[in-house]
Amino acid sequence: MFDLKRSRRRHARKRRIVTLGVPPGTLIADPEAPKPVIRLMAYSSDAHIEVTITNPEEIIEHLSKWPITWINVDGLGDASIIARLGEIFDLHRLALEDVMNTHQRAKVEAYKDHLYIVCREIEYENGVASDQISMFLGKNFVLTFQEHAGDCLGSVRERIRQSDRFRSYGADYLAYALLDAVIDGYFPALENMGENLEALEEKVVLSPTEDMVPRIHMLKRELLTVRRAIWPARDAINSLLRDPNPLVSDHTRLYLRDCHDHVIHVIDMLETYRELGSDLMDIYLSSLSNRLNSVMKVLTIIATIFMPLSFIASLYGMNFDRSHPLNMPELGWKYGYLTVLIFMLLSAAGMMYYFYRQGWLSRSRVTRASLEDAGKPPPNV
Amino acid sequence: MFDLKRSRRRHARKRRIVTLGVPPGTLIADPEAPKPVIRLMAYSSDAHIEVTITNPEEIIEHLSKWPITWINVDGLGDASIIARLGEIFDLHRLALEDVMNTHQRAKVEAYKDHLYIVCREIEYENGVASDQISMFLGKNFVLTFQEHAGDCLGSVRERIRQSDRFRSYGADYLAYALLDAVIDGYFPALENMGENLEALEEKVVLSPTEDMVPRIHMLKRELLTVRRAIWPARDAINSLLRDPNPLVSDHTRLYLRDCHDHVIHVIDMLETYRELGSDLMDIYLSSLSNRLNSVMKVLTIIATIFMPLSFIASLYGMNFDRSHPLNMPELGWKYGYLTVLIFMLLSAAGMMYYFYRQGWLSRSRVTRASLEDAGKPPPNV
Amino acid sequence: MFDLKRSRRRHARKRRIVTLGVPPGTLIADPEAPKPVIRLMAYSSDAHIEVTITNPEEIIEHLSKWPITWINVDGLGDASIIARLGEIFDLHRLALEDVMNTHQRAKVEAYKDHLYIVCREIEYENGVASDQISMFLGKNFVLTFQEHAGDCLGSVRERIRQSDRFRSYGADYLAYALLDAVIDGYFPALENMGENLEALEEKVVLSPTEDMVPRIHMLKRELLTVRRAIWPARDAINSLLRDPNPLVSDHTRLYLRDCHDHVIHVIDMLETYRELGSDLMDIYLSSLSNRLNSVMKVLTIIATIFMPLSFIASLYGMNFDRSHPLNMPELGWKYGYLTVLIFMLLSAAGMMYYFYRQGWLSRSRVTRASLEDAGKPPPNV
Amino acid sequence: MFDLKRSRRRHARKRRIVTLGVPPGTLIADPEAPKPVIRLMAYSSDAHIEVTITNPEEIIEHLSKWPITWINVDGLGDASIIARLGEIFDLHRLALEDVMNTHQRAKVEAYKDHLYIVCREIEYENGVASDQISMFLGKNFVLTFQEHAGDCLGSVRERIRQSDRFRSYGADYLAYALLDAVIDGYFPALENMGENLEALEEKVVLSPTEDMVPRIHMLKRELLTVRRAIWPARDAINSLLRDPNPLVSDHTRLYLRDCHDHVIHVIDMLETYRELGSDLMDIYLSSLSNRLNSVMKVLTIIATIFMPLSFIASLYGMNFDRSHPLNMPELGWKYGYLTVLIFMLLSAAGMMYYFYRQGWLSRSRVTRASLEDAGKPPPNV
Amino acid sequence: MFDLKRSRRRHARKRRIVTLGVPPGTLIADPEAPKPVIRLMAYSSDAHIEVTITNPEEIIEHLSKWPITWINVDGLGDASIIARLGEIFDLHRLALEDVMNTHQRAKVEAYKDHLYIVCREIEYENGVASDQISMFLGKNFVLTFQEHAGDCLGSVRERIRQSDRFRSYGADYLAYALLDAVIDGYFPALENMGENLEALEEKVVLSPTEDMVPRIHMLKRELLTVRRAIWPARDAINSLLRDPNPLVSDHTRLYLRDCHDHVIHVIDMLETYRELGSDLMDIYLSSLSNRLNSVMKVLTIIATIFMPLSFIASLYGMNFDRSHPLNMPELGWKYGYLTVLIFMLLSAAGMMYYFYRQGWLSRSRVTRASLEDAGKPPPNV
Repeated sequence: MFDLKRSRRRHARKRRIVTLGVPPGTLIADPEAPKPVIRLMAYSSDAHIEVTITNPEEIIEHLSKWPITWINVDGLGDASIIARLGEIFDLHRLALEDVMNTHQRAKVEAYKDHLYIVCREIEYENGVASDQISMFLGKNFVLTFQEHAGDCLGSVRERIRQSDRFRSYGADYLAYALLDAVIDGYFPALENMGENLEALEEKVVLSPTEDMVPRIHMLKRELLTVRRAIWPARDAINSLLRDPNPLVSDHTRLYLRDCHDHVIHVIDMLETYRELGSDLMDIYLSSLSNRLNSVMKVLTIIATIFMPLSFIASLYGMNFDRSHPLNMPELGWKYGYLTVLIFMLLSAAGMMYYFYRQGWLSRSRVTRASLEDAGKPPPNV
Repeated sequence: MFDLKRSRRRHARKRRIVTLGVPPGTLIADPEAPKPVIRLMAYSSDAHIEVTITNPEEIIEHLSKWPITWINVDGLGDASIIARLGEIFDLHRLALEDVMNTHQRAKVEAYKDHLYIVCREIEYENGVASDQISMFLGKNFVLTFQEHAGDCLGSVRERIRQSDRFRSYGADYLAYALLDAVIDGYFPALENMGENLEALEEKVVLSPTEDMVPRIHMLKRELLTVRRAIWPARDAINSLLRDPNPLVSDHTRLYLRDCHDHVIHVIDMLETYRELGSDLMDIYLSSLSNRLNSVMKVLTIIATIFMPLSFIASLYGMNFDRSHPLNMPELGWKYGYLTVLIFMLLSAAGMMYYFYRQGWLSRSRVTRASLEDAGKPPPNV
Repeated sequence: MFDLKRSRRRHARKRRIVTLGVPPGTLIADPEAPKPVIRLMAYSSDAHIEVTITNPEEIIEHLSKWPITWINVDGLGDASIIARLGEIFDLHRLALEDVMNTHQRAKVEAYKDHLYIVCREIEYENGVASDQISMFLGKNFVLTFQEHAGDCLGSVRERIRQSDRFRSYGADYLAYALLDAVIDGYFPALENMGENLEALEEKVVLSPTEDMVPRIHMLKRELLTVRRAIWPARDAINSLLRDPNPLVSDHTRLYLRDCHDHVIHVIDMLETYRELGSDLMDIYLSSLSNRLNSVMKVLTIIATIFMPLSFIASLYGMNFDRSHPLNMPELGWKYGYLTVLIFMLLSAAGMMYYFYRQGWLSRSRVTRASLEDAGKPPPNV
Repeated sequence: MFDLKRSRRRHARKRRIVTLGVPPGTLIADPEAPKPVIRLMAYSSDAHIEVTITNPEEIIEHLSKWPITWINVDGLGDASIIARLGEIFDLHRLALEDVMNTHQRAKVEAYKDHLYIVCREIEYENGVASDQISMFLGKNFVLTFQEHAGDCLGSVRERIRQSDRFRSYGADYLAYALLDAVIDGYFPALENMGENLEALEEKVVLSPTEDMVPRIHMLKRELLTVRRAIWPARDAINSLLRDPNPLVSDHTRLYLRDCHDHVIHVIDMLETYRELGSDLMDIYLSSLSNRLNSVMKVLTIIATIFMPLSFIASLYGMNFDRSHPLNMPELGWKYGYLTVLIFMLLSAAGMMYYFYRQGWLSRSRVTRASLEDAGKPPPNV
Repeated sequence: MFDLKRSRRRHARKRRIVTLGVPPGTLIADPEAPKPVIRLMAYSSDAHIEVTITNPEEIIEHLSKWPITWINVDGLGDASIIARLGEIFDLHRLALEDVMNTHQRAKVEAYKDHLYIVCREIEYENGVASDQISMFLGKNFVLTFQEHAGDCLGSVRERIRQSDRFRSYGADYLAYALLDAVIDGYFPALENMGENLEALEEKVVLSPTEDMVPRIHMLKRELLTVRRAIWPARDAINSLLRDPNPLVSDHTRLYLRDCHDHVIHVIDMLETYRELGSDLMDIYLSSLSNRLNSVMKVLTIIATIFMPLSFIASLYGMNFDRSHPLNMPELGWKYGYLTVLIFMLLSAAGMMYYFYRQGWLSRSRVTRASLEDAGKPPPNV
């Protein structure tokens, strides 16, 4: 519920910026977004530095000094800084606008001398949310923008620090490594959802309760969120992989093919979960029907046994004038009461036998043990 | 309900014009359509004028004087004026016929020296409706036709007035800006539907009522209306973007790519809403089943407790001749009544215990609190 | 029901001709088909004649005398006449066989110097039926075959009589006009189905009855019939539009593009109706569940109120020997009867209050008024 | 049920041959398959012979003597004969293996100087089964293999005997004629299924019984069997039609286009039946719900009328001590009994009126008459 | 249930290796994986040897001595050995990483002088599991990696030992033979699932129990597992078949076409099973509804018969003061009791007749016999 509300509200807020009729390419910062923090990492094959930048102008010097520079901006709360970065790197206004409006689908756009790459990071914490990561790849730089300070790119930072080999590759390899780190972040989220799915699956079969429905619905919605993030990513990485572009070397393309495989793997797991999730609802409905069936059996058994008995008892409670010999002579019999009691007993026993034959008395409740047998073929019929 | 009726009636009326066997290209105004109001806006990079035109001939002069002229026609209620406009701009008869028959899908058609662009505007007011906006793009003019005076193009008018940069671009940029304004108008409608969906979602889970079904159905129908408007728009904008045409400059194509992204974003939201909307019906049906189950449990509990009790009471209401010592001796016992009462009490208590063990007495009603938990995995089983 | 039977029977009959193992290209007339009536219409830009032909040989003279000749054959009940027409116009045997076996899908086949075009006309009269219209387009003639004398081509005849402009166009324009007339005939059928759908929709929500199911099924089947006719027509007209062929001029292609738009519009309406029709069944099922729920609530309320009351009444109908002071002393109380009555009243009132709290007593029946509200968001929750 | 078992068992048997790890191209005859019977038919435009061959070597002479030779082999029970045929016609081992493993999908494979064509014949007799027909088309011969002696190729044999024109065409025309005969065999099967579907449809609506479910399931399975046979046939015939190959003349391609139309027609009918079949299950479920509703209405009406009545009767069966004037004074009234009876009558009448107003007493059973009305719009609401 | 858990846990473990942020191409062995066992088989057309290798360096000598060498590695538990193999054969690091991370989809990747082929083997033993088989095809070698020692490649080993013809083909034929052996391994698994499906089908119709639902769900999940393995295999084999590559000869391509046919056949069976499996759930739900209907009929029959009877009996149990002649005169009639009894009997008989007419008393239970009739059209209605 509240996830939708939140995500929609966020959209509404973002769109409001656009829909005010401002010309395209205008940069307006979301007032609630965190202020940008700029971290620069520059390296050659034998050295590297890490600095936090406060004045964007400092970047220019690093760019000219180092073969490869990576500038990472966390937070999009200051339009002027981002505009200045755009000037420094000569970025297109429309691309910058997309950086600020964080509802973009994953995509790759080629500009004159840089590539603009958008992808979405998945966070799983009390529900799934996706954040936009924008990336500009130039000849000697990678410029990344994140909505919030996140640590999904930390592993890349570590590899730069430690691996000479890494530092000997070009900026395109750095971009690949960042993309790969983002995609790898999908797996823990999917595993969480998989565990959730598994727990729901067991509960729906063993002990369905009414709150299963919103849970299943929520799970399907989370899978939908991941789906909206990953499908466009497939196309984006595929276009990086196939479209000729001097910025991406053949060496890096081999690695992008590997990254593409990871994306396909995510999609595979996702679609499997979606299919299993759809089945859950059917299973839940069949559980409900089963419950109703057993409730009704109890009612029918009780009614079928006691209605005739009550009738007989009422019958002999009638007040016919027993002075007429034909009126209820049974009441005067010596063993009348016993006869009636025995008749009642037999009638009840007969009913029970009928229900037993109908199989209404056997319990067919599903248990853990029967679940473990589910993989085996059903017992012979 | 009435939305369908209205929209169908409109179709019927429109088609009647066509189906009378008149030759294609004949212009017949819908008698109920508002009379055309022609507003002209002409500009160069350093000046602009706005005039309301009463005689189409006035346009010719403006066309020759200004580098770019935008003529907007609100209302299609006078065939002769529209035919005259067609002559002035040398428009094809079939395109003009499409302007009048306002059931067209979004499309782009290339004629000798102009492009004919149709798109549909979405209005959300007591339900969704879509109006046709027809646009002719020539070398130095844009000619737009709207079914009714609407304000969705107002933001573009404002930008022309205020932005020198805007006025320095060509007529193709104006056409892009108009298209973009129309597409941006989809977002508020989608947000309204999203809020509607969210409210329905919460209500269906917490307190489903019978009028949920027509509400859900209506929502799905509205999404269908938007869908019929936006999918062809995607193809139309894509063809503007890709097909070579001297009327569309490379500069504008970059902006059209951005507009295309917006369309994809609308489609994305739409399909997500459609999927969530389909689930709503399933959730509603499972709610109904749950209700039925709890109603039946109440009935079964009551019947199971009172039927045996009533039977026993009836039993001792029988009138057997107690002069025979075997006939209902219990009635003569000193503590007979108490014994029976205690037996009844125990039997009822036993039944309650059975139901308690079955879990029939616990309430599993979904509440807001349980909804907030829905994102978390179910409690351990 | 009977529609399927009819249509299948027709198929069976048609196929029987084919399946007898006769060589392809053999013409065998369906003995139940009406005898052919041949009407010839020939025109130049300044004159036109209309004659009914009894001997096919007469056609040859007209063909040589007039620039454009349209021969229309109503009824396929005489193989020899059709074979003779085939010889006169030098038509391929397989095409002629397709004319006779009237189960063809819409298609366009190019032969050496003529095009063979098949399309299907939709008739809506007590259910939907589709009839085959075969058309041969040559350099100076159009030859059409209809299964039965119909009037869907009448509007074209009228335009030939009245419009000089029409008569100045080539045979390809005539073929286009005929095609367009056939496609325009789909709209009234679709509107009928739309009205049917709307009426069903209202009825299913307001007062579902058992005969809804076959009605919905019948509607879906009719939509299926139209679908089978219109989808191939799209491909056929598209191939007329795109495939290079000297018989179709560029001028006519512009008009065919318009006709193609009409076909797409039909498909659009059709698919919308199909989707709404599928929802109808779901709505009907949820209505049934709602009914069952309210029936069960009535039963449960009645049982829950009267079972305890009946039990108490039975209790005091027991015949315990009141000479023992502990046996049913209440019966001897002065206000015993009143006490019991009041207790019963309170118990019933308590039950009613419980049901009131459960919301079982409120009526949530859907009414026309609630339907009109359906477009608005649900009241605050 | 047993159809699946049979078909699966057949698969299992066939596969066993393959899965034993024998090298591909090894020919192992199914021991249960009938022994091959070889019939040769050779013809020129003015003569033809028919002989039954016992020794494959005889074929060689005929091949050299006649322009076109058709060898038909019924039964695949002798690997050596089939291997010998392979040598005579120089067939590829893999193609021969496919002939023996009769689970192939329809396909066309081009070898150096022959085409290998597989298609599947449909037989409808107590359920649908499909048999493999393998065909080799060479310059001057057609070699066909059938699993069992069938008569579906008999019509072609007859045409060879009787038609000079047929005999003047090449071997490719013969292959087309055989293919066409196989495809024509699908129509009677589909008509059978259509009739079955129609009967089920009427029964499901008018008088659903429990055995409807397996019947519907069986029908869907049969449609699935036909589907698996016909879809690949479409691709196969399409590839014959489009792929350039000197063995297939342009003259024959025209006829293959006709055959392709027939396949499309089969697919059309099939998919329509599949869609109608899927609806059947929904209709059946709604019938069940309707039944349940009417059963529950009967129960509720009975309970609602008699429970209050029984309660009143029990009330006046209580044994309060009437010596106290406040205890059940009604019992002593002169018209007490009549009053109570009248009150009971009024109460029952009131209940009946309530149910009448609820519409529970009207019968809405579907009848044949109401079915005939189904095509018309529902009566005004 | 536990299958999912197992497979997911395996994924989790595998991914953990990747997600630790190690650079791509790093080889980390799963500590739980079995240690590698290397078996080498080398052959020329007239000789062959089989040796178990303990030191990878031994391979180099064999490679230079024999025309074709096949090295098979069972178990991936030692990264250093696999890295050494990579050096010997000059394999790409990313390919080696994929060998170790055994969650790859089937694929074919071309490297400079070898092909990297992944496919998945299916094992059916208490549920379906899929294992990864990685294969490197070079000019004179095939190098295979299996997760566990399996025997699915044993048949190929046998053919090498026995067939001179096999040994005369190239390494590409060996790779084909291995692929074919893997694909052939799908058939027994599918047959097992088919038998399982068939048993479930019969049980669901004849005697549905609650544990059907998890069984059906499990079956669908197994089919999903096979599906995820086989669909990518189709693309992989197709790309082997079509993509030009000097490592694959035309001779082998013919055989690969056969292998492709087998894959299509697996997919065909799979999709058929999936469709039948989806129907199973519907059939189960309709069985439940049928059961509920018959339970409710029993209840309604009992209640309808005994409620009126009980009411009458209660009526004559009232204690009206019979001193007033209008109070319950029936009680004083001579034949009062008999009259009442007869009236009760008639009323009960009337009810029974009503139910008989409604068809509620006839049993329509599905039996084996009725299943055998299912293929035939329903009896005349």
